[in-house]
Amino acid sequence: MLNKQILLAQRPVGLPKESDFKLVESAIPKPAEGQILVRSLFLSVDPYMRGRMNDAKSYAPPVKLGEVMVGGVVGEITQSNHPQFQTGDVVEGFFGWQEYAVSDGKGVRKIDPQLAPISTALSVLGMPGLTAYFGLLEIGKPQSGETVLVSGAAGAVGSMVGQIAKLKGCRVVGVAGSDDKVEYLVRELGFDAAFNYKTTDDYLKRLKELCPDGIDVYFDNVGGPVTDAVFRIINVRGRVSVCGQISQYNLAKPEMGPRFLWKLIEKRARVEGFLVFQFADRYAEGLKQMAEWFNAGKIRNRENVVQGIQNAPRAFIGMLQGQNTGKQLVKIADCK
Amino acid sequence: MLNKQILLAQRPVGLPKESDFKLVESAIPKPAEGQILVRSLFLSVDPYMRGRMNDAKSYAPPVKLGEVMVGGVVGEITQSNHPQFQTGDVVEGFFGWQEYAVSDGKGVRKIDPQLAPISTALSVLGMPGLTAYFGLLEIGKPQSGETVLVSGAAGAVGSMVGQIAKLKGCRVVGVAGSDDKVEYLVRELGFDAAFNYKTTDDYLKRLKELCPDGIDVYFDNVGGPVTDAVFRIINVRGRVSVCGQISQYNLAKPEMGPRFLWKLIEKRARVEGFLVFQFADRYAEGLKQMAEWFNAGKIRNRENVVQGIQNAPRAFIGMLQGQNTGKQLVKIADCK
Repeated sequence: MLNKQILLAQRPVGLPKESDFKLVESAIPKPAEGQILVRSLFLSVDPYMRGRMNDAKSYAPPVKLGEVMVGGVVGEITQSNHPQFQTGDVVEGFFGWQEYAVSDGKGVRKIDPQLAPISTALSVLGMPGLTAYFGLLEIGKPQSGETVLVSGAAGAVGSMVGQIAKLKGCRVVGVAGSDDKVEYLVRELGFDAAFNYKTTDDYLKRLKELCPDGIDVYFDNVGGPVTDAVFRIINVRGRVSVCGQISQYNLAKPEMGPRFLWKLIEKRARVEGFLVFQFADRYAEGLKQMAEWFNAGKIRNRENVVQGIQNAPRAFIGMLQGQNTGKQLVKIADCK
Repeated sequence: MLNKQILLAQRPVGLPKESDFKLVESAIPKPAEGQILVRSLFLSVDPYMRGRMNDAKSYAPPVKLGEVMVGGVVGEITQSNHPQFQTGDVVEGFFGWQEYAVSDGKGVRKIDPQLAPISTALSVLGMPGLTAYFGLLEIGKPQSGETVLVSGAAGAVGSMVGQIAKLKGCRVVGVAGSDDKVEYLVRELGFDAAFNYKTTDDYLKRLKELCPDGIDVYFDNVGGPVTDAVFRIINVRGRVSVCGQISQYNLAKPEMGPRFLWKLIEKRARVEGFLVFQFADRYAEGLKQMAEWFNAGKIRNRENVVQGIQNAPRAFIGMLQGQNTGKQLVKIADCK
């Protein structure tokens, strides 16, 4: 038995290509004293990984060439030399794009398979769910009756943001990249309205139609021209929670857009970027609330699952292009 | 005796011209019951007035064509039919660009000429001082030891911001538009460093030199390319207090600049616009503190005074071009 791993082969220029990755097989590592061996079951592919592929200083170090790609994984422990973990435990951690990983247990979270499907530890009950929960409630601070706009609304984070905002009594409008996604948002997730930005010419006009009372909170996963339009109709004391800018991640140099800071003065508005880990000391609270809503059927979770670690690069590239509705996952193995 | 008034004659395109204004003489108005007649002594010219000259919806209605230009004035009451004001009282209010005005007393503040020169009611102890005080302390929230960068640093607001930040124990760096201003900031106001953006090619390089620990708080009066550079070196959890964007006010259409929202994510930074009047219920607190600092010699105040209401348009246009150091005022008459 060998360990299939996906390495960063070269740094992408623009949209990553499959040839930027390399599949290798190596010996399955042996856990030392105090370590666990984890067999991957599900791998998460997320927009932030695009940043890690660049050789640029950021909040986290880049993946080095020839290193295993970083990523969140749900797996089962096949061997434990760690007092707090046992063989058979299902866990979630940053084990990377590989079939097996050793870990010292730091940052590893035990998952109870009785409570929810284990893949949800990478979606509604994992990092995307927490990102939506804290990014909306703590940065956006929506109040009942306000209008919340979400870009990337059919993605892993955006779909949670909209549903949480509905639970808080807001009018929720989504921006997505296909008619199917728009229908999903309105019919299945209960968004008040949504539009397909790929078939819309005048974003400002469409936003005015769908947000007749203006926009109080904008949860931005995308950036670019839709975001430009939002700054033209943001309400007084509006808040922009900047979670992602996926439209910009594959650009070789910063794109130009109309300057908008003067609008923030007139509207006394706030724009704030965040990373989910700044709320790490409150993850338990966030997970408890998300699980409560999820188990009560108040929040729906869709996952888009590709089979086989060899297909992880394709799934990742597809996610960057918006091919997924809901959370994009790669299924690596079945639970024994 | 007639009342000289300056009206908005036409809406400016780009930088206002003197011909956009019109000087007229009309009868001195008579105060009705409950009104006061105010004779103007000093008129304030401020960047916000440029916005009021446009026929565009904003936080305040535009000045109509043929109307007296809006503006803050310190004057003396020459006739009072109002129980709370007496002839001879010195007051500050939005009396406009004219020698005489009637008012019902709303928003009119009595000034004590014994406490400070009356012109300071339009500078350090007036709207610019309050703008600096609340915009820095409430939006920027500087902490001792942090680096505060101020653009428009030699202007009415910027010069106060830098001095308040020094009093709060910060490293303070200013951006200004002439070598004389740079010298004024460092030699007279105690800024730690400053640079002349008009003779600097590489803003990012210069900012890195003068802010070796990065930028924690940016108080922005100007916008444009200096602001672009700031977003590249803002510190983690940095705060941008957007007070003005004077570089943009005379543009016929929004200027393009590099998109930067992705930087806010990585740095978990916050950008917030404000208008001083959102702190109206705390003006007394702000004025008390500013007066205490000013009277103790801890804050210096420079005023640039032009004589005669007929010169107000020229003073205003010069201020928009950065010709003033400190607060630009127009002296209309001497106190009797």
